[in-house]
Formats: sequence, C-alpha cells, structure tokens
Amino acid sequence: MNKKTKIPDPTIERLPIYFRCLSELKNLDIAIVSSEEISNRTGIKASQFRKDLSYFGEFGIQGLGYPVIHLFDRVSEIMQLNKQHQVAICGMGNLGRALVNYEGFSRWGLIIRHLFDNDPEKIGNKIAGLEIEDISRLPRDLEVDMGIITVPAPVAQDTANLMIRSGVKAILNFTAVNLSATPDIAVRNVDLTNELAILLYHMSSHKKKNKKSH
Amino acid sequence: MNKKTKIPDPTIERLPIYFRCLSELKNLDIAIVSSEEISNRTGIKASQFRKDLSYFGEFGIQGLGYPVIHLFDRVSEIMQLNKQHQVAICGMGNLGRALVNYEGFSRWGLIIRHLFDNDPEKIGNKIAGLEIEDISRLPRDLEVDMGIITVPAPVAQDTANLMIRSGVKAILNFTAVNLSATPDIAVRNVDLTNELAILLYHMSSHKKKNKKSH
Repeated sequence: MNKKTKIPDPTIERLPIYFRCLSELKNLDIAIVSSEEISNRTGIKASQFRKDLSYFGEFGIQGLGYPVIHLFDRVSEIMQLNKQHQVAICGMGNLGRALVNYEGFSRWGLIIRHLFDNDPEKIGNKIAGLEIEDISRLPRDLEVDMGIITVPAPVAQDTANLMIRSGVKAILNFTAVNLSATPDIAVRNVDLTNELAILLYHMSSHKKKNKKSH
Repeated sequence: MNKKTKIPDPTIERLPIYFRCLSELKNLDIAIVSSEEISNRTGIKASQFRKDLSYFGEFGIQGLGYPVIHLFDRVSEIMQLNKQHQVAICGMGNLGRALVNYEGFSRWGLIIRHLFDNDPEKIGNKIAGLEIEDISRLPRDLEVDMGIITVPAPVAQDTANLMIRSGVKAILNFTAVNLSATPDIAVRNVDLTNELAILLYHMSSHKKKNKKSH
C-alpha cells in the first residue's frame, strides 16, 4: 500500500455530500455519472470534486465518467459507513434525549450502547430501551468507540476526562466548551448555531435589497 | 456607501469563530491583537483572517495589530448580533424541545416567540412558558423573522410552505430534506452528523497508526 497521504479536513467534510448524491443516483439506477452532473446536484465545483476524489485513488473512466456503484462503495468505505460504532451519550437533558433517537446517527452506523447522567432523578429511567446510568460509576473499560457529550458546559471537561479514561477514542462535543484531549483522541465540536451566521447575514442582505427596490 | 461586495459563504462561516476569539480577548482586557495571535487561537491562517476582514473594511493599525473592541463590535454588527430575531419552532419532538432552551440561540439574539406541532396530545402544553400551538392554524402574518423546522422529514416541505406563507424570511432546517423555497427566502440546513465524517475518518486513521506502532 502507498504511504498514506494527509487528506485535508474540507475534503473529508465534503464526502457526506458526495455520498448523499451517489446514494440518490444509485436509487435512480444511474450507472455512470460525470463530474459536471455531480457538480449540478451538489453545488460543488466539478474540479473540486475531481481533486477530492484524487486523494482516494483513480475512479473515472476516460471519456465516460464515474461508475456510480463503485464510487458509492468506496466513499462508504472511506467514511467508515460499512462499520458499526459503539457509542455512549453523556448528559440526558433535552438534547441528549433528542440524540438517542436521531436517525442521522444510525445512518452512520452509530449504535447507542450507554446513556449517562449525574441526576439521581434521571438515573435508572429508560430511554429507547436503554437505562440511564450513573456517570460517577463509569467503568474503566466501557467498550465503546465514541462518546457524545451533551452535559452543561461547566462539567464538560470532567465528563470528557471520564469518557477518555473509560477507553473512548473519539468525542462528539455538543457543548460550547473547547475540550482538551491528548492527540490520540479525536474531538469534533458540533455547534448548532454555525449555520445561523450565514442565515442572519443573508436575511440582512435580503432586507437591504428589498429596501433598495422600493 | 460603497457598492456591496458579495461576501463568500466560507468567510461568513468563519465570522463566529473570530467572534468567539475576540470575545475571549475582550474579556482578558487585551486591547490590540495581531493576526498571528488570532491564528494561534483559532487555527485559521493569519493570511485567511486578514483576507476575510478585508471584505468588511480596514481594521488593522500599521505595525500594531487590530483593536479588539472595535473589531468585536464590527463583527457583532456584521453578524447581526446587535439585533433581535423573532423565531417560531415547528415540531415539538425531542429536538424541537431541546432547541427551545438552547442557550446558543439566545447568544445570537434569537427570541423564540411561537412553538407549533400537529399532535393534539402536544397542542396546548407549555414549554418554557410558551404554549404549543396548532400548526394547521398558523396565521398568515405571524410576525416572526425566522422559522426553525424540526418536524419529521415527510412533512418538512409542507411545514416550510406554511411558514413562508406566514411571512418567515429565513428557515433553519434540521430535517434531512432539501427544502425548496423562492430565492427571497434564506434557507440553511443543520446536519448534526456533519462533524461525524471527520470524526470517523480520524478514528480510523488513529487505529491504523496504533496498529503500525505495535
């Protein structure tokens, strides 16, 4: 195997967009797709799509395009969609409870195995068949790959430390805290307001345009 | 005023990162900051930061850096953080309920005014002091700026149409459906799994690295 090239994060971020598009094409029984068609459907430039793919190998058939099923399988593989990931959620507030049944997670092969909270009122209750466990009794070997953190900000770092001690290798962080972890732990922050900046900016542009036209 | 330049979405997307960083610097009573310091704190290249800012005017003081408070105020203004936005949430499932109290929204000046659902069991119940209203009775003039959609996918487009008819100018869409709307309506999709692609990719890289080192 070739030496592994470092793939830029923006390329990885675009893979789910390609995946969804290929999934649609596959359902439409389309066998071959051009990079221009991918571009029309995703809004990502054809040249960008070709560059992103080039990190993972040669897929195009000269003068024809890309074989949909092959590319779909390869993107699934790169995105680890062909694997299952054992997950624990810490923090059973509204957001934690919402995530237990979030269908987006199952599409990604995430299997929720454990739910934790520190509230005695919540511990022992069941959500989607899983009992809420006491986070202070988090075992040293939890046998999960990923921790999802939805606790209040002041206890976010402590919660992360507990999860890492219990063997978690990746953390999906829904709190506003920048968690610190050793480099062998992958941490990604989900900010539900990321899209708001763009939305509010466009709202104000629309308003200005409307004013001009009067 | 100059003719408005079209600002690229990636620049708008980075504004919240700069905003958070400037907010921290302001709290530390730091008066002047260099683009290199911004870069160290945000992980965004100094040249990128300077380019992003250049869309909004001249901020730097030659040989010194950027005045923190002035820049903070300007970024707040561009991001409309100095304004309030009236919001309605449609879909009072777990996610909708989580969002009612999501503190990230209040930081952005979002004020939740209305909650809607179509479930007779939910209509009339109160969450955070707001009564859940019947979505089929959505009035023509709701006097809200933004609709947040957390309904099940099959009714997402109908819900969006209702919201638009009632005067909403922007939609924050938490469903997996690509909503269609006329160009005067700003629509942004929030996918809670966007960060998962990167997390799973890094997890697999870590595993490979660990295997190599044995």
